[in-house]
Amino acid sequence: MSTADWKALLAAREDDHLQELVDLLRIPSVSTDPARASDVTATAGVVKNRLLTAGVPVVDIMPTPLHPVVIGEWLVGQDKPTVLIYGHYDVQPEEPVELWETPAFEPAIRDGKIYARGSSDMKGNLLTAIQGVEAVAAANGGQPPVNVKFIFEGEEEIGSPNLREVVRNNRERLAADAVLSADGGQFGSDTPSLTVGLKGLGGCQVNLRTANTDLHSGMFGAKVPNAVQAMVQLAATFHDKDGRIAVAGFYDPVVDLTDEERAEIALVAEDDEALKTTLGIDSLWGEPGWTAREREWGRPTLDLNGIWGGFQGDGIKTVTPSEAHLKVTCRLVPNQTPEGVVDLIRTHVERHRPPGSMVEVVRLPGSATPFAVDRSNPVHKAAEAVLTELFGKPPVITRSGGTIPATGIFQDELGIDTVGYAWAMPGSGAHAPNEWYRVEDYFRGRVAYAALLEHLGANQP
Amino acid sequence: MSTADWKALLAAREDDHLQELVDLLRIPSVSTDPARASDVTATAGVVKNRLLTAGVPVVDIMPTPLHPVVIGEWLVGQDKPTVLIYGHYDVQPEEPVELWETPAFEPAIRDGKIYARGSSDMKGNLLTAIQGVEAVAAANGGQPPVNVKFIFEGEEEIGSPNLREVVRNNRERLAADAVLSADGGQFGSDTPSLTVGLKGLGGCQVNLRTANTDLHSGMFGAKVPNAVQAMVQLAATFHDKDGRIAVAGFYDPVVDLTDEERAEIALVAEDDEALKTTLGIDSLWGEPGWTAREREWGRPTLDLNGIWGGFQGDGIKTVTPSEAHLKVTCRLVPNQTPEGVVDLIRTHVERHRPPGSMVEVVRLPGSATPFAVDRSNPVHKAAEAVLTELFGKPPVITRSGGTIPATGIFQDELGIDTVGYAWAMPGSGAHAPNEWYRVEDYFRGRVAYAALLEHLGANQP
Repeated sequence: MSTADWKALLAAREDDHLQELVDLLRIPSVSTDPARASDVTATAGVVKNRLLTAGVPVVDIMPTPLHPVVIGEWLVGQDKPTVLIYGHYDVQPEEPVELWETPAFEPAIRDGKIYARGSSDMKGNLLTAIQGVEAVAAANGGQPPVNVKFIFEGEEEIGSPNLREVVRNNRERLAADAVLSADGGQFGSDTPSLTVGLKGLGGCQVNLRTANTDLHSGMFGAKVPNAVQAMVQLAATFHDKDGRIAVAGFYDPVVDLTDEERAEIALVAEDDEALKTTLGIDSLWGEPGWTAREREWGRPTLDLNGIWGGFQGDGIKTVTPSEAHLKVTCRLVPNQTPEGVVDLIRTHVERHRPPGSMVEVVRLPGSATPFAVDRSNPVHKAAEAVLTELFGKPPVITRSGGTIPATGIFQDELGIDTVGYAWAMPGSGAHAPNEWYRVEDYFRGRVAYAALLEHLGANQP
Repeated sequence: MSTADWKALLAAREDDHLQELVDLLRIPSVSTDPARASDVTATAGVVKNRLLTAGVPVVDIMPTPLHPVVIGEWLVGQDKPTVLIYGHYDVQPEEPVELWETPAFEPAIRDGKIYARGSSDMKGNLLTAIQGVEAVAAANGGQPPVNVKFIFEGEEEIGSPNLREVVRNNRERLAADAVLSADGGQFGSDTPSLTVGLKGLGGCQVNLRTANTDLHSGMFGAKVPNAVQAMVQLAATFHDKDGRIAVAGFYDPVVDLTDEERAEIALVAEDDEALKTTLGIDSLWGEPGWTAREREWGRPTLDLNGIWGGFQGDGIKTVTPSEAHLKVTCRLVPNQTPEGVVDLIRTHVERHRPPGSMVEVVRLPGSATPFAVDRSNPVHKAAEAVLTELFGKPPVITRSGGTIPATGIFQDELGIDTVGYAWAMPGSGAHAPNEWYRVEDYFRGRVAYAALLEHLGANQP
């Protein structure tokens, strides 16, 4: 095998690969839009064919109740390590359409960036993985240096509702030493990063009722419980005045960040003043005793996502409302569980229910367990070494306050860690108008995938 | 003049008068419905003609930007007292239509009640006033024993938006010793009542903003102020945990109920247990130290009529909302003012605004000043005497937690009190399906109007 060979091959194919990305971005594979179901299906077909073209010998399209999952297998020997590359080929809707400078599904290159829906999230990253594997295999006598498996879903943008079932039903087929997630990004311009933790998620809706009907505030407001009044009283008890969560037991299972981890996070601290300026606020908020970045990456939250009740129209309506509703989600850290926090909220709500009100807590779908990489994992260590060489500096260690359901699914169903290996830039407009992806990152991403497989093949654990 | 004469006259005309009510109820004079504007106008014409038929020499239809006001004048001498009879000829919409046992605008008589939209609120009462004046005048040589003026508006059910302007522009024409309001009701079955106080009303909308955009709760929820969180914290400060209003200065101008008034209210106490059962709640609520009825009638309130912000759809959305809104109205007692309470709320909100949030308080239209009858008013005293004789027992003294804009308008523009003189029953479904009015009350209401005018003529102050 020759490193020079695959590097040359990738360099020679830059134009082709860029065209390939443009073509893939033209297909509006919006998973949430029933009118585009055939586009989503078509994209699964394109991905399958691209894997076959790359040389992957076995590629299947697995149907689900909604959009299919593409699974590929390129096995080269039981003595070799195995990586499972994860990604998704669906995209967010393009709304609000009028804010796009060029149409969302007509890719346009300006200033070294390709603008299109799905460019950074994540059709670009998806292709870097396939093209990297293709190149390293071609330079290695037609076979990759390690076993490579692929799983590309079409429902990530709608919460991966069917991924767990597919993974569970294909445990043996998908067995690997680690997952490489092509869904994600790098820390900054030319700053590589490795994400070692993701938060979990658990949520519920709190429904509160007082009287059995809305009432005239003149006749009843002075004497009958008001559901909006009761709800704001109740909802205000979830945090103390300083921003610490006041739900009994909420912090009990939490594994606090160590001094070492806090030092690591301090290396990638955010500029609080710049954040305030960007968001137009005069102060930040949250649990005392931790920096903003520590809170974002390492402390659990209880977020009030929405509230409604009573009259919401123009003008005045003198009603004593009888119903109010609250949406709550919690971002979780090890060792919290989605079920556990909802149980604690239920107990809290029963205890703090204002007199005269009835409450119910309904758990919502869309949960995820918190995730932390085992940093002794050989794939994590290999990624660290390869990124260091490729970028000329070691990756910064990051966490995310967000949740990727797939990560928890792979942990639960396959018992393996996920290493983020992806190239989207902060601020690249994933889920927003004028989404972009740097062409430079696209080309280098291919190299990163090829180099990682080569490194894993040469440095078997 | 002979009392026996007008009593005989009214007795002889029961059938005619009932038919007259049926005919009036057939016209769907729904003031809020643009499609029925011509029905509202037609009803004004019917009322004008009925006044002319009764013998009122001067009747005018005064146009407004929306529905007209009917004004009548029957002057009999400057040495006589003058009463101004107020009412409205518009009605509420009939929705939900499917809950009516018989159609809303096809009056049906069952068990001594006439069922139709507008029966108790207030076409029945309106006719009792005209028919009573007609009878007493006929028995008095063709002239009523005192000066009588009439003002019937067509916009009461939409908040009387143009009444003030009409009254202001016709101050001399409408000048009187007191208003008799035919809009209202009696306390219970065969229990006469006189209302001596109405609450005022002032309201505002509180708009709260944190960041300049909604944010991803995973990335920002732990560190950026959440507008729903901030709003529930803020809204929970308007009351203490016992239900007392915690806005500084709110109670300062309030004239507390005297021991004498409390004793009077205790005579018409409500059954708290029955109220809880009816409304399906396990406890009442409100300012400590006062009974439920005292709070309803004599204590100011700060009512949260509605709240909204963030995600309100099905399922889960992990958003950190940047906006939240709250509707607030206050029911006022003497000597509070609508402007005053909104100013206090504005100051409170500025003081209790959670860090990182911006708030604005926008005053809403629809205010009213609180009203209390001067109980030495001769018309009030005359009404008390007449009702006592007519029902065989003295009227109970009541107040209302509600607001009638007209009352404040007559006080402000004409400087005179309003005495409620009306016959709707509690639970008669004003504003609800199957509205009803007792035929017995209708017939007796005519007698009450005739008797009151006779009494005023015979007992001039």
